[in-house]
Amino acid sequence: MSGMKTDLYQLTMAQGYFLNGRHEQEANFNLFFRKCPFKGNYAIVAGLRRAIDYLQKFGFSKKDIDFLSNEKGQDGEPLFKQEFLKYLKKLKFTCDVDAVIEGTVVFPREPLIRIRGPIIQCQLVETALLQIVNFHTLIATKASRIVRAAKPNKVVEFGFRRAQNPLEATDAAYLGGCSGTSNTEAGLERGIPIKGTHAHSWIMSFPTELESFEAYAKAMPNNCIFLVDTYDTIQGVKNAITVGKSLRAKGYPFIGVRLDSGDLAELSKVAREMLDDAGFESTKIVASNDLDEYRIKELMEQGAKIDVYGIGTKLVTAYDQPALGGVYKLSAIKEDDKWEYKIKFSADKIKQTLPGILGLMRLTKEGKFFKDVIYDITNQNEEVVMLDGKLQAVHDSDNYTVSYLLQRIFDKGHLRYYSPSLKEIRARVFSQLDMMSEEIRNPFSEKEVDAVVLEHNYKNIFYNVRMKYQIGEEQ
Amino acid sequence: MSGMKTDLYQLTMAQGYFLNGRHEQEANFNLFFRKCPFKGNYAIVAGLRRAIDYLQKFGFSKKDIDFLSNEKGQDGEPLFKQEFLKYLKKLKFTCDVDAVIEGTVVFPREPLIRIRGPIIQCQLVETALLQIVNFHTLIATKASRIVRAAKPNKVVEFGFRRAQNPLEATDAAYLGGCSGTSNTEAGLERGIPIKGTHAHSWIMSFPTELESFEAYAKAMPNNCIFLVDTYDTIQGVKNAITVGKSLRAKGYPFIGVRLDSGDLAELSKVAREMLDDAGFESTKIVASNDLDEYRIKELMEQGAKIDVYGIGTKLVTAYDQPALGGVYKLSAIKEDDKWEYKIKFSADKIKQTLPGILGLMRLTKEGKFFKDVIYDITNQNEEVVMLDGKLQAVHDSDNYTVSYLLQRIFDKGHLRYYSPSLKEIRARVFSQLDMMSEEIRNPFSEKEVDAVVLEHNYKNIFYNVRMKYQIGEEQ
Repeated sequence: MSGMKTDLYQLTMAQGYFLNGRHEQEANFNLFFRKCPFKGNYAIVAGLRRAIDYLQKFGFSKKDIDFLSNEKGQDGEPLFKQEFLKYLKKLKFTCDVDAVIEGTVVFPREPLIRIRGPIIQCQLVETALLQIVNFHTLIATKASRIVRAAKPNKVVEFGFRRAQNPLEATDAAYLGGCSGTSNTEAGLERGIPIKGTHAHSWIMSFPTELESFEAYAKAMPNNCIFLVDTYDTIQGVKNAITVGKSLRAKGYPFIGVRLDSGDLAELSKVAREMLDDAGFESTKIVASNDLDEYRIKELMEQGAKIDVYGIGTKLVTAYDQPALGGVYKLSAIKEDDKWEYKIKFSADKIKQTLPGILGLMRLTKEGKFFKDVIYDITNQNEEVVMLDGKLQAVHDSDNYTVSYLLQRIFDKGHLRYYSPSLKEIRARVFSQLDMMSEEIRNPFSEKEVDAVVLEHNYKNIFYNVRMKYQIGEEQ
Repeated sequence: MSGMKTDLYQLTMAQGYFLNGRHEQEANFNLFFRKCPFKGNYAIVAGLRRAIDYLQKFGFSKKDIDFLSNEKGQDGEPLFKQEFLKYLKKLKFTCDVDAVIEGTVVFPREPLIRIRGPIIQCQLVETALLQIVNFHTLIATKASRIVRAAKPNKVVEFGFRRAQNPLEATDAAYLGGCSGTSNTEAGLERGIPIKGTHAHSWIMSFPTELESFEAYAKAMPNNCIFLVDTYDTIQGVKNAITVGKSLRAKGYPFIGVRLDSGDLAELSKVAREMLDDAGFESTKIVASNDLDEYRIKELMEQGAKIDVYGIGTKLVTAYDQPALGGVYKLSAIKEDDKWEYKIKFSADKIKQTLPGILGLMRLTKEGKFFKDVIYDITNQNEEVVMLDGKLQAVHDSDNYTVSYLLQRIFDKGHLRYYSPSLKEIRARVFSQLDMMSEEIRNPFSEKEVDAVVLEHNYKNIFYNVRMKYQIGEEQ
């Protein structure tokens, strides 16, 4: 069962808590990242559907327990005690889980998942939750950047053969804004629109390129995007137009041509002109070949006439930053029925964690994003934030609207959330980015934006915890 | 079924072949890469066990066919014809597959998998075979580089939370030479040795670090590697020694300490001295924190006293090059019972493919690697290679021993190969690298090594095909 999807140290710590009688002690952990990926100013949070799947399957089967009981310590004696394994076998997930829903624009230090419950459970689920949220958020964010760079043109994901994890990468790429994928399994399993025509090998398997296009058009007259660069791109476009004319004569659409090598900006301009001259104004030009948001920007600046970008490796592996450094940190633990706030010291200021039971509010002004506020949910005072040099009550203001980003997902282990469809989540990404300022959402923004403030009372809490742990530096 | 793990264009091409009556035409495809990853001089090929799994499950279920029958073309009519889907539903994998076995050191342009059979099948399996071999070979190669840099110290893989595909990454990392992993599921599913003690959160959940170490030692006295950097590393080592002494008094081993931040070289030297002074000469020092082969090299040059390197993100995502650009190219097609050799033209010389039905020989001299020879298996002449300016017969020489690297895996779709265990494959990697020159296996080698020659008669074949396709440039 999915309990085994974890680092071994979670299991040895779990046994440690158990044998020290501390395993049921209530703890609070926050999952967050410290820095936006790709030098950008935002991330698109993703992975919650997979995280829910995982948590619903959490547990240990007999096979799992048998395996663990055979693990040995340094002295050759069993690593795990029978009493602990017996406990583990019966363990059910009973935590409260709150999360920012998928497709939301999020920022550094914000609690993306907050999990509260017996410390043993919080620890055991850490590794898988991190892996899922790190990977999905990374790819969704990369996709949203590429889609924005290509706007108003479309982006289709073509990365299966180079992906480290094709199905999940396709899911996150679509969520982040791609229009479709070449990945047939993702069509079947996730309902993502699938696209595809032919490869160079199709053309090479015929005596001539023209014959190969003709044969394709004969077989699938309603799916003709001809790949034109196998031998010579210009000649390829000519051949495509020849076949396009006979498609037209039969009442079929000549959908497009695909360029996959050479000077894409220049070739797309020539191809556009050739197509237009032949009366194929609505025939699309698709381009692929190692593209990402930076290449797309260059191409658009060069006036490329590309309607659809096919993106592979750079998207599905997040090539320029293939991991998001999301972390999962203990922020409070209940001692004698009272929350004891915790902080991780680090000489590296960015690594200092936020203590407490965190909440996350979003302030918007006339539908536009204004600020996110991190606060402590146990706060008894009115929530106030320091804005423009003065303290303002959050809930009693005509200046902005407040919404709460953390939603209850599991209530004592019971699922209380019904995820929107992947299509709805994808639509959310667009409306979320519409709310953001250009400074935030522009993938090439060079200005660092600080979108998050700490609530005023929470700042005091944070200060007191820092003092207690002798961490004096101002955040 | 696994047939759906493919790009849609493979299915539309498949229908194209089918409707043109060419689907059963025999073709030969080669899977290879053009450039070694990580600017190195070799790769460790991996993924064959997964590729075999995939090919054994190849096919299309009723659910798959139902899904495909609902796909629409541009005109809203079905994309796939019923007669084709009926054929697809019954399709069984009947190709011959030859492959270089996992754990072998391989070089650019070498056929890693050669697949021969009905062109429709060869095409449908392309995407998944590439994905599997690309990813596994990438991570196995990265691991072998890191392991070599760390030699004689050990490397353990800790990357689950940052991996794009944790289980497969762990498998490939172990294959490439890691000693173990933190990934519990990989222990269960693949028999990989698992390692783990505790995290910062363990320590933070106790009032003091010392108490946390004591509690851990009480619970698992046979698994004590104390993480010493939560608050202050030197004090952490002191606390670990205190608990180590009480372990010693009870007859338990004090296995090690782990450093996870700060100046690892300096801290490891100080920790070594402190441990030695306390009589813990055999207590190990484990270090982690964003390491890779380059960081390890630096640390070793700085005289770090580290016994075990824990490697995460940089290994499991192949951070500095997260994709291997392996390709799968048509190299011959049977026309009227005669092989017609195929070549893909490209202005980019490195993208020109090798035509023919390729074989791969390895020449060794006194157990040391000498050269790999790519040849054509239909060649009726004696195989000869140009070495040191003169032609030499391959099989009639005292100079070197010949072995054939391509092994039969599937015979007309029947599995004929029984894979060695992952442990055996891992051992093969070490013995393979032992055969290689330092120039080839050194991850920091700055000299480019050309380890592959084309067999003399094959060179002529290649030349003739190039002439036919008007590709004049000398290779």
